[in-house]
Amino acid sequence: MNYISGRAKLGKDVRVGEFSVIEDEVIIGNNCTIGHHVVIHRGTVIGNNVRIDDHTVIGKQPMRAATSIFKEKGEKEQPPCRIGDDCIIGTSAIIYAGAEIQNGCLIADLATVREDVVIGSFTIVGRGVAIENGTRIGSKCKIETNAYITALSNVEDEVFIAPCVATSNDNSAGRDPDRLAKMKGLVAKRKARIGVNATILPGKVIGEDAFVGAGAVVTKDVPDGITVFGNPAKPKMS
Amino acid sequence: MNYISGRAKLGKDVRVGEFSVIEDEVIIGNNCTIGHHVVIHRGTVIGNNVRIDDHTVIGKQPMRAATSIFKEKGEKEQPPCRIGDDCIIGTSAIIYAGAEIQNGCLIADLATVREDVVIGSFTIVGRGVAIENGTRIGSKCKIETNAYITALSNVEDEVFIAPCVATSNDNSAGRDPDRLAKMKGLVAKRKARIGVNATILPGKVIGEDAFVGAGAVVTKDVPDGITVFGNPAKPKMS
Amino acid sequence: MNYISGRAKLGKDVRVGEFSVIEDEVIIGNNCTIGHHVVIHRGTVIGNNVRIDDHTVIGKQPMRAATSIFKEKGEKEQPPCRIGDDCIIGTSAIIYAGAEIQNGCLIADLATVREDVVIGSFTIVGRGVAIENGTRIGSKCKIETNAYITALSNVEDEVFIAPCVATSNDNSAGRDPDRLAKMKGLVAKRKARIGVNATILPGKVIGEDAFVGAGAVVTKDVPDGITVFGNPAKPKMS
Repeated sequence: MNYISGRAKLGKDVRVGEFSVIEDEVIIGNNCTIGHHVVIHRGTVIGNNVRIDDHTVIGKQPMRAATSIFKEKGEKEQPPCRIGDDCIIGTSAIIYAGAEIQNGCLIADLATVREDVVIGSFTIVGRGVAIENGTRIGSKCKIETNAYITALSNVEDEVFIAPCVATSNDNSAGRDPDRLAKMKGLVAKRKARIGVNATILPGKVIGEDAFVGAGAVVTKDVPDGITVFGNPAKPKMS
Repeated sequence: MNYISGRAKLGKDVRVGEFSVIEDEVIIGNNCTIGHHVVIHRGTVIGNNVRIDDHTVIGKQPMRAATSIFKEKGEKEQPPCRIGDDCIIGTSAIIYAGAEIQNGCLIADLATVREDVVIGSFTIVGRGVAIENGTRIGSKCKIETNAYITALSNVEDEVFIAPCVATSNDNSAGRDPDRLAKMKGLVAKRKARIGVNATILPGKVIGEDAFVGAGAVVTKDVPDGITVFGNPAKPKMS
Repeated sequence: MNYISGRAKLGKDVRVGEFSVIEDEVIIGNNCTIGHHVVIHRGTVIGNNVRIDDHTVIGKQPMRAATSIFKEKGEKEQPPCRIGDDCIIGTSAIIYAGAEIQNGCLIADLATVREDVVIGSFTIVGRGVAIENGTRIGSKCKIETNAYITALSNVEDEVFIAPCVATSNDNSAGRDPDRLAKMKGLVAKRKARIGVNATILPGKVIGEDAFVGAGAVVTKDVPDGITVFGNPAKPKMS
């Protein structure tokens, strides 16, 4: 049993599990498999050959706290979420309205992708990863289990982000009333690699093909091709 | 389609999505919006103007492992969960019986709030945050994405806890048979700030308006107004 | 209301909540309690006296990215998931086909256990923990909130892994085309203890009764009975 709106359009050979909800104006391509208890919110557009596992929510509108600095700006509703062809979305993932997932991506279990995010083709977003709003992720990236990509980040193609990497965007730690204008997220250039449980301070640039060692705390930009380690992170002595 | 107990009381203008479950004796105020696949367990009390998103579970009774040191004590059932007015609860959040969330809070997606926890008004609990049992959180705090607040913690008003902060409460790491009596959680005084992916050892006090730098490992109390960095964390040289 | 396959076998005194899905060939023992919106996939075998909370998914088949190095090998479907007697599985947990959970375990809220994993009896897997594929976990272990156990790990009996511990298995950080053959996960010997938010590099051995301090970054094997601290981790000076 399901709730599928009469105003949704489903392609050929679309299987839908039990107790799923597909709202008005949703468009789903051909040959898709939707699990049990999936929710696809109003207007979401999904390509062909997409697998969406149980309990996943797609196309959620953002929330704002009563005290949010974003709220004052009179935000409008986000545009529909778009999921490309040949994507796999895991169990209990949450993808917001205003997110665009390009072809061939894997978004694993319990990952969240916020509004105003674009994820390039063939990128893997691991289990439990959070990608915050206003972020661009390139193609063929791997963002591994539980990594945290802060708002306003820019990750280029073929970047590798290991499990449990932590990033940040606010040097004032919530203190500066003008912090929204000053926030800067992670910048990771093409083929950069960031090791397990590393910490990246706001706005730091990880250069092309640079490598941040496991557990490093990056307080300065890392130049192209350089490897850094330690707390605070310093170039590797050779 | 829903399951709403005949013994639940819903206020005016309460909208409930598809396949949600509202158990016996639940009380919901006016003008609330409940998503799809939400579960509200027996006796939960929810105020006015509350938004609860898809797949969230409210009022869950605790679990105890077969070997739990809590189990021997003959615990009784937790009292109902209470959610104040004007709160927003995200998708796939889990809030236990015995938790009290005061007015105007945001509890984001995938956050968990355990039993015997009070969260003060206008506090933000970020995506994926876990707040363990026996903890008090003040008003106007921000606890950001994936931060971990260990059991028996005390966080005062206007504290900022950055993403991925890790805390602990057991110096014996599960070894001491008397560890339950010795456990001490995080103590964060008013306006303290803790940076991204910092680690706080059991029972350490972060003083009023103190600042713990990103990636720091705090092994000693941090006095009021002091900034610390590094592993182990030391006061910033000026 | 539920969907329970006519080809599933439920024991005596099994209670099932609303909107749950129990697929073909599932076998459930006596005196089990299944929450709301639970999904139990085809063929799963569950023992006696098991509690499974709302929104949990058991027996999920793995996903592979379009570009996965595992995909080329022509994998076959995983065997059914097996859950022993007297287990408690929390809310929104995800346990894959090919996982075996032995008697008396607690798998807490939002934890994930992947395929080809065995978890020994009376082990506790905390809230939000991820245990990746190809891993063995012993008996009477405690793996605490949000700890991350990488693929191909071997954790012996009575090991304690504190909250937010991060592990890894690929020294090349996704770069080496032969990395699958070279990957080595965590090795934690009997009664080893790993402190909160510690980072363990690929393949490092934490010796019997060894202790890794909070926030340490382990770049070398830790001998039996030794305590290490810092970044990089070094033996404690006495």
